[in-house]
Amino acid sequence: MISFDDMVTAPSTWLAGDGPHADKVISSRARIARNLSGYCFPHRAKPEDRLRLADTVLPVLQSLPGLRPCHFLRLADVSALDLEILVERHLADSASAAGLVGKATAFRRDERVVVLINAEDHLRISGFAPGFDLWDALRVAKEVESELEYYVEPSYSEQWGYLTSCPTNVGTGLRASLLVHLPGLVLTREVGKVMHGLSQIGLAVRGFRGEGSEVVGNLFQVSNQVTLGKSEEETVETVHQVTAQLLQYEHQAREVLVRDAKAQVEDKIWRALGLLRTARLLTTVEALGLASAVRLGVDLGVIQGVDTSAFNEMIQLAQPAHVQRREGEGLTAEERDAMRAAYVRRRILIE
Amino acid sequence: MISFDDMVTAPSTWLAGDGPHADKVISSRARIARNLSGYCFPHRAKPEDRLRLADTVLPVLQSLPGLRPCHFLRLADVSALDLEILVERHLADSASAAGLVGKATAFRRDERVVVLINAEDHLRISGFAPGFDLWDALRVAKEVESELEYYVEPSYSEQWGYLTSCPTNVGTGLRASLLVHLPGLVLTREVGKVMHGLSQIGLAVRGFRGEGSEVVGNLFQVSNQVTLGKSEEETVETVHQVTAQLLQYEHQAREVLVRDAKAQVEDKIWRALGLLRTARLLTTVEALGLASAVRLGVDLGVIQGVDTSAFNEMIQLAQPAHVQRREGEGLTAEERDAMRAAYVRRRILIE
Repeated sequence: MISFDDMVTAPSTWLAGDGPHADKVISSRARIARNLSGYCFPHRAKPEDRLRLADTVLPVLQSLPGLRPCHFLRLADVSALDLEILVERHLADSASAAGLVGKATAFRRDERVVVLINAEDHLRISGFAPGFDLWDALRVAKEVESELEYYVEPSYSEQWGYLTSCPTNVGTGLRASLLVHLPGLVLTREVGKVMHGLSQIGLAVRGFRGEGSEVVGNLFQVSNQVTLGKSEEETVETVHQVTAQLLQYEHQAREVLVRDAKAQVEDKIWRALGLLRTARLLTTVEALGLASAVRLGVDLGVIQGVDTSAFNEMIQLAQPAHVQRREGEGLTAEERDAMRAAYVRRRILIE
Repeated sequence: MISFDDMVTAPSTWLAGDGPHADKVISSRARIARNLSGYCFPHRAKPEDRLRLADTVLPVLQSLPGLRPCHFLRLADVSALDLEILVERHLADSASAAGLVGKATAFRRDERVVVLINAEDHLRISGFAPGFDLWDALRVAKEVESELEYYVEPSYSEQWGYLTSCPTNVGTGLRASLLVHLPGLVLTREVGKVMHGLSQIGLAVRGFRGEGSEVVGNLFQVSNQVTLGKSEEETVETVHQVTAQLLQYEHQAREVLVRDAKAQVEDKIWRALGLLRTARLLTTVEALGLASAVRLGVDLGVIQGVDTSAFNEMIQLAQPAHVQRREGEGLTAEERDAMRAAYVRRRILIE
């Protein structure tokens, strides 16, 4: 059984802050879209068809070794708050979409791999890894996908590859994405230029909450835009190579900051630490922005003695539903900001 | 001899933070304008006439019991930086004005009383007292004025009273002013209305750096606008009474804040403390603004263990020339902001 009480006090294991280049790459994710022959795509399917799909797939998923120990639930069975917690942890798709009938999620207890049922596609299998390791993220996702193909038949065209609800995913159905921390490029105002450059070579860069979202905590999601005409390996290799270059740009930007604006950057870092330690009201966006500056300070050696895992942890634990669930339901936004600030103070107090 | 090195490490004694209602009234000041018969007003006088006046008056001032132990100097003899320090301590008028020839200052070592020579008037005698005590400020100023009248003859008209360079000072030549801390009225946005009300009954309210200056540290200077047709006692009594009413408004505003915006106010106070303790760059205006919030926090009982005298001290010691002189000349504005932040951190570190 899923214990939401336990869940909201610890982040997903892939946010542990270890893994390669964990100082700049928070996590890696490989998401595979699959649809089943004989079923309408979810947005065209009738509620009873979506239910039928879930009834077919859920028992299968529970039996797969790659998902064990497996947690699973139908989204219609959880409260709106718990659903938000799942969304904040990438264990469910946004709940604001159409009805919840037939929607379900199944994930390994360590949250390294999750399968969403009746999301944009029939099945969306995501593998996660801490740090800069797309191959490992792909490995855990592929493991589940391979096991699954033994039981269900995916929609596949010899000409196009895997068929998906949205044409942008046709082909491999693979989206390889990295959550990267780029405070240097933001502070030097280079990030817009870099994003534009990446989009020209077929990569997308988004704020960390996904498409069209604002920049929060200087976190960005880098992913491939193309899924057609490239193998899974090529896709992962491209995203890996380009991100390696991006990390080099970030490194250079940090050098420029230290060289040309040392006093201002140190001031910004120390102020952020001061505010995290004292503020009595904090929004998620501000908390992550301040934690980003502190994380940069640790990376640059400006401050010591602050636990860098706090930043990664906040990416989930400072989110509204996580705060709400920890502190008791029925909080106003202001009370939630107060509870978030109290949580952050406890987390950052080490001097 | 004046030691500027000593001066810049300790505020004037009237900023000690004691005296009546010291939680809201920083200091009291009584300034008496006097001009001497037989001399042109300073702005019309030739340099040699201004020198003659200074040569006449300075030896007299040094001999007055009310000014002993007396420090004195001619403004032309000090460096531009030391002159700025005197201005920041109200021991000289703004140095940006016309030539310095003949300008001089004489003050009691504790800075409770100062006489400016060849400022806007021939003589401007200011008495200072800590807290809400205009009578005491007037007493020290009058003591020097009475002693002085034994040696020099003031310009006096039976019809108009004391004659002054600017018509707004004709009559008593007395400006009674109080430096008050009004964070409650600023935060509730009531201060504009209150200022307008005071101006309607003949009082002026200004930012603490004097006429037309912006609000710094939520500090305001309340003073009489009328010097004609009122006795010194009436003037002091009016300013005292109206300010007592103003303190009542401030008290009510603080009650409203605690009742209607407790979380926001506490957040603001704690953040200010956090920033004072961590910032690496601080302008004078920001430092005083933050110190004002912390001072409010102590007054409201939100925070404990912070030395409230730090706020009063910063009113002088965080000023640019004071910082420059303590840390070494030739600092850039940014270096000065860094030194100011370092001074503030040391001063506020008590937890």
